[in-house]
Amino acid sequence: MSTALRHWEQACARSPALRLLDVHLRGIGQVMFQNHPLSGLLFLAALVWGAAAADAWPVLFGGLLGLVAGTLTAYGLRADAANLAAGLYGYNALLVGLALPTFLEPSALLWFYVLLGGAVSVVGTLGTAQVTGTFRVAALTFPFVLVTWLLLLATYGFAGLQGAALPYASQVAPVDPAATDPLDLAAFAGGVLQSISQVFLKGDAVAALLLLAGLAVGSIAAAVWGLVGALVAVVTAHALGAESDLVSAGLFGFSPVLTAIALGAVFHAADAPRARVIGYALLGTVFTVVAQGALNVLLTPFGIPTLTAPFVLVTWLFLLPHAPAASGNDGG
Amino acid sequence: MSTALRHWEQACARSPALRLLDVHLRGIGQVMFQNHPLSGLLFLAALVWGAAAADAWPVLFGGLLGLVAGTLTAYGLRADAANLAAGLYGYNALLVGLALPTFLEPSALLWFYVLLGGAVSVVGTLGTAQVTGTFRVAALTFPFVLVTWLLLLATYGFAGLQGAALPYASQVAPVDPAATDPLDLAAFAGGVLQSISQVFLKGDAVAALLLLAGLAVGSIAAAVWGLVGALVAVVTAHALGAESDLVSAGLFGFSPVLTAIALGAVFHAADAPRARVIGYALLGTVFTVVAQGALNVLLTPFGIPTLTAPFVLVTWLFLLPHAPAASGNDGG
Amino acid sequence: MSTALRHWEQACARSPALRLLDVHLRGIGQVMFQNHPLSGLLFLAALVWGAAAADAWPVLFGGLLGLVAGTLTAYGLRADAANLAAGLYGYNALLVGLALPTFLEPSALLWFYVLLGGAVSVVGTLGTAQVTGTFRVAALTFPFVLVTWLLLLATYGFAGLQGAALPYASQVAPVDPAATDPLDLAAFAGGVLQSISQVFLKGDAVAALLLLAGLAVGSIAAAVWGLVGALVAVVTAHALGAESDLVSAGLFGFSPVLTAIALGAVFHAADAPRARVIGYALLGTVFTVVAQGALNVLLTPFGIPTLTAPFVLVTWLFLLPHAPAASGNDGG
Repeated sequence: MSTALRHWEQACARSPALRLLDVHLRGIGQVMFQNHPLSGLLFLAALVWGAAAADAWPVLFGGLLGLVAGTLTAYGLRADAANLAAGLYGYNALLVGLALPTFLEPSALLWFYVLLGGAVSVVGTLGTAQVTGTFRVAALTFPFVLVTWLLLLATYGFAGLQGAALPYASQVAPVDPAATDPLDLAAFAGGVLQSISQVFLKGDAVAALLLLAGLAVGSIAAAVWGLVGALVAVVTAHALGAESDLVSAGLFGFSPVLTAIALGAVFHAADAPRARVIGYALLGTVFTVVAQGALNVLLTPFGIPTLTAPFVLVTWLFLLPHAPAASGNDGG
Repeated sequence: MSTALRHWEQACARSPALRLLDVHLRGIGQVMFQNHPLSGLLFLAALVWGAAAADAWPVLFGGLLGLVAGTLTAYGLRADAANLAAGLYGYNALLVGLALPTFLEPSALLWFYVLLGGAVSVVGTLGTAQVTGTFRVAALTFPFVLVTWLLLLATYGFAGLQGAALPYASQVAPVDPAATDPLDLAAFAGGVLQSISQVFLKGDAVAALLLLAGLAVGSIAAAVWGLVGALVAVVTAHALGAESDLVSAGLFGFSPVLTAIALGAVFHAADAPRARVIGYALLGTVFTVVAQGALNVLLTPFGIPTLTAPFVLVTWLFLLPHAPAASGNDGG
Repeated sequence: MSTALRHWEQACARSPALRLLDVHLRGIGQVMFQNHPLSGLLFLAALVWGAAAADAWPVLFGGLLGLVAGTLTAYGLRADAANLAAGLYGYNALLVGLALPTFLEPSALLWFYVLLGGAVSVVGTLGTAQVTGTFRVAALTFPFVLVTWLLLLATYGFAGLQGAALPYASQVAPVDPAATDPLDLAAFAGGVLQSISQVFLKGDAVAALLLLAGLAVGSIAAAVWGLVGALVAVVTAHALGAESDLVSAGLFGFSPVLTAIALGAVFHAADAPRARVIGYALLGTVFTVVAQGALNVLLTPFGIPTLTAPFVLVTWLFLLPHAPAASGNDGG
């Protein structure tokens, strides 16, 4: 594989068009932390499959439009060339573009919204990284979450943009225990796979397998932790009594999947003892399930989805202690 | 004009009373970034006119009371003398004092509230600047927003303070498309001017002209960007289908006006290419309209106004990338 | 006393078991900023008395379980030894463990929840201190508030965990003025004492006296400021027209008590003029009452308690200006 990658990179060095393609593929790969064009290609295949299976072509189109808007904005703003080449200004824009047509009706204004969101997500990535970089923590998908939340919230006040699948804004109420049926094996397996594919806002087992393949191309450890994260999330959510429909649709698992990959395979110190990394990543993964439940409730009055906010919140909390100790002590 | 300004500053240097007047006038000017006593005087004229036109003298009195409370607090806390002389501890206190009587019934407790809010806004300005200054970003009107939100929210639990014009706390619901009538020319022009005057919580065209004059005294570019921001905001809000009543009352435009001035005329790097500054400021201005829509919805369940929070949020996001790059890279 | 303390510390140096006991006692003491084992012992006595008086043994058990889970997690993560010995990784875990059984029905999952919350509170303390330490500000009880809010919010979506005493999620509505009866002397005195004991989520006058004794052991100034904070809070809340039932149950006072101790007796600069420290601490204490009212309203739609969030918010705001001035100026 590494020979093929080397050939590809040589070809990219010669051709601006290939280089542009490479940047976009890496942008897709970075949604799950993979700076690798083949990971991006396999993730793209998962997106195409998911769009075909659900007849949701506007979602795919929106994602690609957002991605292109983000990349062009990054060039226009003279953003850091190394980060740009690694796809780090693309993944948030892609996710904004996937999310907007998932929750809103297609219209001319929707595509304006996607362009605006893709462009602003790059500003948001640059701005977030200024703050989080001070603490040696990555921006993660915070720019995607922030920009998409604002764009979706605003539609309740804009007659030009209609919600298609926004959650219903309602008062907070305890879940009905009767709704938490035992999961059978099919629902369990489905929940694990769809937890992975929901990272790209899709509930689809084949897409999940393509995503796992894309992860494995970039990093076997990432693929293993992605699967472990999904398993842990489904078991934890079910044990706590989360609604079975949500669990088996992967809606309690996509943030924990990202937390597990981030803490288990991407951001830990190279010299940390293996057992401590594993324990820490599992603790973060389990707590991300709680954060997912909490944000489901917190956003209920506003009628917007959590997106990957539980992942961002918990992973930031768990990554911050890795930063070099600040001079001052923390007192009571 | 600069000769007159020099004479004024020489007179201030000789007279503590004039110096105190100068500090307060600059504090009023800083609401729209003008460190200039004549800007402050023209803004004050706009406030007096607005109070007379709407028979809203408690609002004017509250603003001045808050301003004085803030200035005295800054002296008492031995705050930075240069910032104090530039009016940077006054503008948030002034805005707190204008906002409280705008939304609450006059009473003895209201004036206690204004004094408390004016004093705490200075602490908030000092505290906010410690954090934002680390990233070379200004405190903007965040202290005003935070302190006023807390004071207004609390009134729902305090029988001693009654809401007069607080937005009604209700559930989030999509806007009724029928309410978005086309804007005629008068409504359009009114929307543009009132977008400017609503920066000081007034819907008044004459006040808007006085504010533009005050801006022009301090900086022609600021006046131009203020007008451009208002135009862009009204067009964008209308195109997205915002309620016409809100648009023509300037309630979608006051935050974009501030964003436009901040990004277009105040905080950009002196050596940045003109086209990039213009494009960046326009992108931020348009996105502030979305943020205004989003915050309208986000605050609906709580029954409090957005104040200038959309401006603060978007301008911070757009100013952060200007800061010198942190050492760490931002990863996926 | 200091001789006894020296003997105790020598005994601890010889015995790991005593050292472990010492760490846990100091962890209890740090809830009110006291790095002293006898303060911790007296606070523990208050907790035992409170549990006995209200027949609320699961609350006491939860608190101790959370404390042990937190301490073990801090050892496992190789957290800073000096901070660990001072109990700084214990107080948030203790509070999480006290809060969860206060608001949720006992069950096997509840104890899992306490263990999870205790462990994550340590990660949260380490992470928060990285950020706040940059600005020379302590983590305070923010980790407790964040972790407990997430755990409580999530229960509305988890059938396995049932609320026992969570506030009712409802729409924001103004308080009924008729409910604010005048406080008689007994209600006033009860409000002052219970404001102190509510720091540990208890409404109990005897517990309050034990807590004051524990404070006095560590610092006479802390005991005085705790009492002053409670007095100021009850008077301010009553003057503003807060509901008398809440005031006399101490529910407007526990955050101001902590703010008063923090600003008046713990974190001020040693060389600051006495009058300015007193004025600043009183201003912060009064504003914490407003913040308590505001957060009561803000959390109404979500059905979760404020915990000590008003204290954290206001104390952070008032401590930040003490930090050494950042290079950049704060502009308008």
